[in-house]
Amino acid sequence: MHLATTPPPPYYAVIFTSVRSDIIEGYAETAQRMEELAKQQPGYLGHEAAREQIGVTVSYWESLEAIRNWKTNTEHILAQQTGRSDWYTAYTTRICLVERAYSWGDFNL
Amino acid sequence: MHLATTPPPPYYAVIFTSVRSDIIEGYAETAQRMEELAKQQPGYLGHEAAREQIGVTVSYWESLEAIRNWKTNTEHILAQQTGRSDWYTAYTTRICLVERAYSWGDFNL
Repeated sequence: MHLATTPPPPYYAVIFTSVRSDIIEGYAETAQRMEELAKQQPGYLGHEAAREQIGVTVSYWESLEAIRNWKTNTEHILAQQTGRSDWYTAYTTRICLVERAYSWGDFNL
Repeated sequence: MHLATTPPPPYYAVIFTSVRSDIIEGYAETAQRMEELAKQQPGYLGHEAAREQIGVTVSYWESLEAIRNWKTNTEHILAQQTGRSDWYTAYTTRICLVERAYSWGDFNL
């Protein structure tokens, strides 16, 4: 996981913050698969994520339409359902317009 | 660290993603102090954070003015300078308008 390199604003961010349950069955495989699948979506720009007590995942998108298409992807809908039944105890999804962005430092590290 | 409970949109999010250097001196104390100081700022609504290979910290604010005031807080400016000289090898700050938010699950866990 590196920092994402995104184009100049405006573009969109989806901030997904979550608390995991104790159920680990299927989680890592599905998370990995969803990451691969998201990268294949039209309008996907990148993502950044970390988890300690909570998980904070931010994905970047060209447009609201791109986000809508990913939200309603059939395989992703199934993962969302198992997310609620098995893997998460709580989560929030926030749809945001990125208005400004400033980067500093060496992104090749 | 729990999930943040924020008011209905619109409000603002600052997404700060970073890569740490090997320098640990002063980092934890300053991070803790900045968290306390941010919570005291007018217009602060909450924050969510986690770090693995990268750190992803999102803070929520009532307005761009509140973000500007926090950005230019004297003690925060000093921390930002030491961040560049000592604690980080790279970071990105994104200023975002939160347009929609959906929560699910038990936030009291």
